[in-house]
Amino acid sequence: MSKEITSRAQDYSQWYNDLVIKGELADYSAVRGCMVIKPYGFALWENMRDVLDKMFKDTGHVNAYFPLFVPKSLFEAEEKNAEGFAKECAVVTHYRLKTDPDNKGKLIVDPEAKLEEELVVRPTSEAIIWNTYKTWIQSYRDLPILVNQWANVVRWEMRTRLFLRTAEFLWQEGHTAHATKEEALEESEKMLHVYADFVENYMALPVIKGVKTASERFAGAEDTYCIEALMQDGKALQAGTSHFLGQNFAKAFEVKFSDKENKLDYVWATSWGVSTRLIGALIMAHSDDEGLILPPKIAPLQVVIVPIYKGIEQKASIDKKVNDIITALKAKNIRVKYDDTENSRPGWKFAEYEKKGVPVRLAIGARDLENNVIEVARRDTKEKGSYSLDNITETIENLLTEIHQNMFKKAMTFRDEHITKVDTWDEFVKTLDEKTGFISAHWDGTAETEDKIKELTKATIRCIPLNNIQESGNCVLTGNPSTQRVLFARAY
Amino acid sequence: MSKEITSRAQDYSQWYNDLVIKGELADYSAVRGCMVIKPYGFALWENMRDVLDKMFKDTGHVNAYFPLFVPKSLFEAEEKNAEGFAKECAVVTHYRLKTDPDNKGKLIVDPEAKLEEELVVRPTSEAIIWNTYKTWIQSYRDLPILVNQWANVVRWEMRTRLFLRTAEFLWQEGHTAHATKEEALEESEKMLHVYADFVENYMALPVIKGVKTASERFAGAEDTYCIEALMQDGKALQAGTSHFLGQNFAKAFEVKFSDKENKLDYVWATSWGVSTRLIGALIMAHSDDEGLILPPKIAPLQVVIVPIYKGIEQKASIDKKVNDIITALKAKNIRVKYDDTENSRPGWKFAEYEKKGVPVRLAIGARDLENNVIEVARRDTKEKGSYSLDNITETIENLLTEIHQNMFKKAMTFRDEHITKVDTWDEFVKTLDEKTGFISAHWDGTAETEDKIKELTKATIRCIPLNNIQESGNCVLTGNPSTQRVLFARAY
Repeated sequence: MSKEITSRAQDYSQWYNDLVIKGELADYSAVRGCMVIKPYGFALWENMRDVLDKMFKDTGHVNAYFPLFVPKSLFEAEEKNAEGFAKECAVVTHYRLKTDPDNKGKLIVDPEAKLEEELVVRPTSEAIIWNTYKTWIQSYRDLPILVNQWANVVRWEMRTRLFLRTAEFLWQEGHTAHATKEEALEESEKMLHVYADFVENYMALPVIKGVKTASERFAGAEDTYCIEALMQDGKALQAGTSHFLGQNFAKAFEVKFSDKENKLDYVWATSWGVSTRLIGALIMAHSDDEGLILPPKIAPLQVVIVPIYKGIEQKASIDKKVNDIITALKAKNIRVKYDDTENSRPGWKFAEYEKKGVPVRLAIGARDLENNVIEVARRDTKEKGSYSLDNITETIENLLTEIHQNMFKKAMTFRDEHITKVDTWDEFVKTLDEKTGFISAHWDGTAETEDKIKELTKATIRCIPLNNIQESGNCVLTGNPSTQRVLFARAY
Repeated sequence: MSKEITSRAQDYSQWYNDLVIKGELADYSAVRGCMVIKPYGFALWENMRDVLDKMFKDTGHVNAYFPLFVPKSLFEAEEKNAEGFAKECAVVTHYRLKTDPDNKGKLIVDPEAKLEEELVVRPTSEAIIWNTYKTWIQSYRDLPILVNQWANVVRWEMRTRLFLRTAEFLWQEGHTAHATKEEALEESEKMLHVYADFVENYMALPVIKGVKTASERFAGAEDTYCIEALMQDGKALQAGTSHFLGQNFAKAFEVKFSDKENKLDYVWATSWGVSTRLIGALIMAHSDDEGLILPPKIAPLQVVIVPIYKGIEQKASIDKKVNDIITALKAKNIRVKYDDTENSRPGWKFAEYEKKGVPVRLAIGARDLENNVIEVARRDTKEKGSYSLDNITETIENLLTEIHQNMFKKAMTFRDEHITKVDTWDEFVKTLDEKTGFISAHWDGTAETEDKIKELTKATIRCIPLNNIQESGNCVLTGNPSTQRVLFARAY
């Protein structure tokens, strides 16, 4: 089966698409740039969502739901935000179809059902939400507002990739309102740490926390914090962002509150989001030429059991044992499946679950049963071994933990080996082309230099790491004085 | 506080709006017909969703996600379905805004960014899903497909009501594919029973299971099963529907499978859904003039505790005891909140939680502490009593169960008292106007009579109950022979 997956060396981009489609995570749809998230992929997203949702609630947030549509007049209220998203938004202009008078059975847009004001399908919800917060906030007693929304959003991207960049995607967007600048800043940093915690401890993917340069900021933000991960092809991927929005949206929507001294002031804001794009990140960071390798903590299936037998008698005794194993594993909340379907052979099943990235595969035959053992194969290292059935639950629990740690360590080692300190332009270009990965280099702090570097190499400043070391040096392009290194990379 | 809620007698419709808005479940938005679901209302929906989601998974279904947009050519493929929804769909015609050349700072639709084919914002997903299933289904081995989706949908309703009828709403839509007619029929009935189970056993709302007449069917269905509930004003509310779609969508989208004998046939389909409308139903069925009365099993908060004290010393000893109670209640998965905010008095809090429908309110003061008791007030009957602190957890657990049962019984009694057998047209009209509720009457089985009755009285046939008694009689309007009574009502 693995033959059908293009290897990374052959065509990295095709390898990625093969994994998504043949691993049954998602598929193309009839709608340009939109994907269908298949049950296996959606189960992965559900697990990610449930963990994140709990983290949000544990940090005091609640969920709510705001309209899909943003009236144009609200959309354009915060100028920078509007400018940033205007070029890629789907616009509803009519509210009715009617039968085509020239061609019964076909429908056309009813010209008489034109909206007085066009509706933008939300590319992000700051505008509609801040227009709502206006009615929720009068006094400091109404603050903070710590609200999150799980939703679909639409950005009309010209070049789309499954999960990584789709016209419609699923995400969560936190939108908080605060009485002070300090509190809003603290919130935006806090949520960045929540994201990093999630991506590292559940997706087994190390990230660098940092802050974006002005040109890479979210449209309408004063500061954008981000977590950046490294993919196996040496390109970076922004895995989550948290924005300190200052008073920009409060001013655009006239959201003021009276403080304890009864003084009126604009409210301070943050927003933060991660999306189904994270699935693209974990595929590209961990998987291999045989298929997906999914992090155990969020894998839809953590363990699959395949029986190997001849005849119904052998099958019956294997079934009996397997049922005990499943009961024990489920009692430990381990997601397990017994694949005893008749219409495919064990070898085919092995390849199938390898392709789908199930962390642990168990195989058991009549001989194993006699010897009170079971074959345990781990997906990440492909190691196989025979283990006693007596403490199989403990063996598997430990193995799942070990797989997570190993995946994280492997990705961390790769990432660390691909952060290169560079001091000359020649080295910069050479490293970018040959070694790839992050380049740590001095930059003179101007948008012009940043643009020029992007133009010359397609590399962007991914972030200025948090708690960055201050050291004097010279900009890698202009030679102008610099006070710190920043991280460059080509990125998804 | 209760003064601010309009009474049912005064203005039922305003009473309902007051509950939704002042109970902080939802609010109007800047988008015509769309609402904002506030955190308290969304927590209620989350609880409902989680229970339903588990029921779906326990009956073998998995979740997936399909695009928000339906290209017009797919939308119109199943003719009846298209006809049914064409009049109320939001249509995306452009994918970009640009700066208004005559008015910088304003945006206009970019005429150069017109879509080649318009996209309909899904009012329901049969079209996009069956166009996808075409690629998933080749053989009987690919069947059944048992997929559910949690999503937002848009139907451009002219008259909207919070929760009951909004332009955008949240729902789940199950879409299943089967090899045989029998299996599809079985599925659509099974899901109707799942819905009835949920509405009765979690929402405490009795329902009548039935089948719709041809004119009340879902557009594109061969049969529509429904559950019908009765509101306090005597109007019926359709709380969920499950459709047997026959081979209509399979034919429209050319979805065939080869059976065990290698014969090609069209696939059989069902779809089924419930929505945020259910929240409207539970508000109208249970609540009173003081505010919401929420069913304990899905209430965002099941218990609220209010301290009554003078000075910080009393407060400290109450806090200590309350912490123990909360720990014990949480260990039983009871959702509890301790409201010890300083800025409002106990009486204000009592009214507030009454308005928000929290099933159980506890109040505890210094004297109670001395006597080892606590005041327990239930929202449904407004009974209050003093209970020993020794077995307070058990007391509350039992009380929550009792409240559910009492709410169900009360709604059931009301419903049963409002099903009236009627044999003459005069009685029909009189009952509808004076007693309201369901009318069980003979109908001659024709769409003409059904239409005429609707025109004359605004009453529709809500359903032909499942396992309906067959008895000969005469149509209440025309006097023509009839074989069974059906249920009429005015409805939301």
